[in-house]
Amino acid sequence: MTRRFTDRSADTRAAILAAARRLFASEGYDKTTIRAVASAAGIDASMVMRYYGNKANLFRASAEINLGIERRFDEPGTGSAEQSRAAAPTPQSLAAQYARVFVEHWEKGEAEVERLVLRTAMTHPEAIAQVQRIFEEQVVPPLLAGLGDDPDARLRAALIMVNNLGMVLCRYLFELDPISGVDGDTVLRAMRAVNETVLTLPLSAD
Amino acid sequence: MTRRFTDRSADTRAAILAAARRLFASEGYDKTTIRAVASAAGIDASMVMRYYGNKANLFRASAEINLGIERRFDEPGTGSAEQSRAAAPTPQSLAAQYARVFVEHWEKGEAEVERLVLRTAMTHPEAIAQVQRIFEEQVVPPLLAGLGDDPDARLRAALIMVNNLGMVLCRYLFELDPISGVDGDTVLRAMRAVNETVLTLPLSAD
Repeated sequence: MTRRFTDRSADTRAAILAAARRLFASEGYDKTTIRAVASAAGIDASMVMRYYGNKANLFRASAEINLGIERRFDEPGTGSAEQSRAAAPTPQSLAAQYARVFVEHWEKGEAEVERLVLRTAMTHPEAIAQVQRIFEEQVVPPLLAGLGDDPDARLRAALIMVNNLGMVLCRYLFELDPISGVDGDTVLRAMRAVNETVLTLPLSAD
Repeated sequence: MTRRFTDRSADTRAAILAAARRLFASEGYDKTTIRAVASAAGIDASMVMRYYGNKANLFRASAEINLGIERRFDEPGTGSAEQSRAAAPTPQSLAAQYARVFVEHWEKGEAEVERLVLRTAMTHPEAIAQVQRIFEEQVVPPLLAGLGDDPDARLRAALIMVNNLGMVLCRYLFELDPISGVDGDTVLRAMRAVNETVLTLPLSAD
């Protein structure tokens, strides 16, 4: 009985979040109301309030993103054969892995929630906080682990973020010519080269 | 007499564009009306219509951007002494110049119109068209001139744009930590290194 309640609750939450994602994306943050989300999910508004409390929390829950970076870096066999056998990652292998994860993620068209967050971030601090959180929780840790005692590891992670968000903006959101028209391999090659540059260039004043 | 009319017309246009910029930035594209812009400028709405015809044209005119790249590349004395004496620019000198122009432009806080265009571009194709136009008219030509017969010159220009917009987004619009807190010299160094990478990395399948 408890189990059925839990399943039903999970279903309800999933329906609410799916409706919220759809409405935030199509209507924007301002025009989306708890009432409209509830109605789109076929659920009473009081239930949405009970689960998420307010619009900012609902946005945050509906815009959870898992870049899948850390998992990918841990799994053997996801890099090239040599890379997975090597015990310690190098700036070169890290550069290649960040580029590969990024390109696979966006080229597969699995980034609807990311689009939503970036669009919303232009006008709403809630979404910027989400970008910062994803950076801290998902982009930084693999680099800190991989670069060991580099005092600029966090800044290098930020420069990878600059590279990634620049590509997202130009290729996938704005669809600028010619970067929107080149093949994924070319994008991968460029991302890898830039990542390698920002993971190795001299930064600290020493 | 003709001269006075022309002056007055220029003043009127300037007042309209300043009001438009202010309203587009604070209210967003959708909520800004020709009527509100006219009222903010203290001018009759029919005059705004006469000069700009419709909201899309008014936006375009109010969001004109001059990055100042080409001028800077032509002027002797704006690069280092060696660079201005050298007849032909190199990928290294171009990388440094694009980085310098970008950083000076944004660090001086002179980029209000750019902020407006990028915010608006997330939701309005008119603003994306503006970004594409600025790319074609201001970012590409100096590179085509500088890189000579490189078949990938336009794509390299696009990768410089990726780098620039990524930095704009992370440092100036989202103000993400730690990239928003580092000094301008560090940003310049990173931009220059990345520009140099994208101007020299192998791209064409050959």
